Amino acid sequence: MKKKIQVKAAVIIIGNEILSGRTQDVNTSTLALWLNSLGVKIQEVRVIPDIEEVIVKTINKIRKKYKYVFTTGGIGPTHDDITASSISKAFNVKYDIHPQAFEILESYYKPGEFNKGRQQMSWMPSNARLILNPTSGAPGFAIENVFCLPGVPSILKSMLGGLKNEIIGGNPILGKTINLSTVESEIAEFLTKVQKNNKDVDIGSYPFFKAGRVGVSIVIRSEDQSKIDICNSQILEYVKQKNIEII
Amino acid sequence: MKKKIQVKAAVIIIGNEILSGRTQDVNTSTLALWLNSLGVKIQEVRVIPDIEEVIVKTINKIRKKYKYVFTTGGIGPTHDDITASSISKAFNVKYDIHPQAFEILESYYKPGEFNKGRQQMSWMPSNARLILNPTSGAPGFAIENVFCLPGVPSILKSMLGGLKNEIIGGNPILGKTINLSTVESEIAEFLTKVQKNNKDVDIGSYPFFKAGRVGVSIVIRSEDQSKIDICNSQILEYVKQKNIEII
Repeated sequence: MKKKIQVKAAVIIIGNEILSGRTQDVNTSTLALWLNSLGVKIQEVRVIPDIEEVIVKTINKIRKKYKYVFTTGGIGPTHDDITASSISKAFNVKYDIHPQAFEILESYYKPGEFNKGRQQMSWMPSNARLILNPTSGAPGFAIENVFCLPGVPSILKSMLGGLKNEIIGGNPILGKTINLSTVESEIAEFLTKVQKNNKDVDIGSYPFFKAGRVGVSIVIRSEDQSKIDICNSQILEYVKQKNIEII
Repeated sequence: MKKKIQVKAAVIIIGNEILSGRTQDVNTSTLALWLNSLGVKIQEVRVIPDIEEVIVKTINKIRKKYKYVFTTGGIGPTHDDITASSISKAFNVKYDIHPQAFEILESYYKPGEFNKGRQQMSWMPSNARLILNPTSGAPGFAIENVFCLPGVPSILKSMLGGLKNEIIGGNPILGKTINLSTVESEIAEFLTKVQKNNKDVDIGSYPFFKAGRVGVSIVIRSEDQSKIDICNSQILEYVKQKNIEII
């Protein structure tokens, strides 16, 4: 068996629009699936408002607890985009025009279109590493273990490819889902036993209601495929015995 | 003008399935819109794993900081549903069968169907107040300022009506959205001025890309309609001057 290495990360979502209910966050799920494939587990997510003091405090608390921290939101050109200046404060570094970011943005826009608003997006913590943006020019940035990405989901997604070499994960987190035509209470006792006998595996049970159909998804997660397989066969055997339909 | 009363809440989402990216949280937005209408502002959201120690610690930290705390998830019948037992620990009260919850569940199920798994859902902090569930029987519960709701979005939604009398909010948070056919950098400087001159109002700027169309939503939020109106007219005037199309 491979040595068990758990690499943990946190996500900080910066945005009043999520807290007000105006916008539904989808970036957590994008980041989680991508990080899982690299062997990194998200251990905590926080959604915080566009308030400098809160951003600084949260960043400085969270970045010491996890190997990687990802922020989303607040790196655009408007007055409510205060992530870059707040991160500079958190790290106590100069908030300044980043020459390489300025260059990228200058060549991205047509002559005359690189206005003050757009120039704003080249202001960053002075020692930041850039995260390239293949969709809309304006780069994100990283400083130490904190990676700052935009809030617009399609742009964030397009920037992850360029980040891959920065992330050194542990063993990838593998998963197996079994969808059953039953209700949770029918399998609760049995699942408790399986979980007790297989402590290195995470077994989740999630009821669903789809197209008028009631069911339960059982999700088995581990870094070790053989342990997933053991749980999987135990569950399949039980399900067969009890005549529960697999969907 | 009405006296300004800000009532603040936090949401704690308990669930490995959100952290793993398997499920996208939609409950934050449901709770936020409902709370806004009652004059309560969500100030912070945390997503945490199904780990007792983490739940206990998070609850005890957060419940002292906000008037109301809402948890979602982890109150079903399976082994990974540990919210009720963890909350009991956090409040240092007995985790026990709640007689009224037991009664509700017993009469909800057909004779013979109220099995051990289902009985599990009547275990709660012993002094909990019930939150009735018009969808699927199993009640949520509240203890002091902490309200524990299920993770299934449709069930959570159906339980909010019964909670209304428990929540005493401040002035409702009002909002106005202006959708413009422009890009953020074109209006950034002007918006900064409007925000500076109207400090009691929150102005957010959110780019969107819909059906091949690029635009910006400007969201003005305040408890004071007249202040929203002032910002709104300033923005509309500017937009007219600059020939920016309202969508």
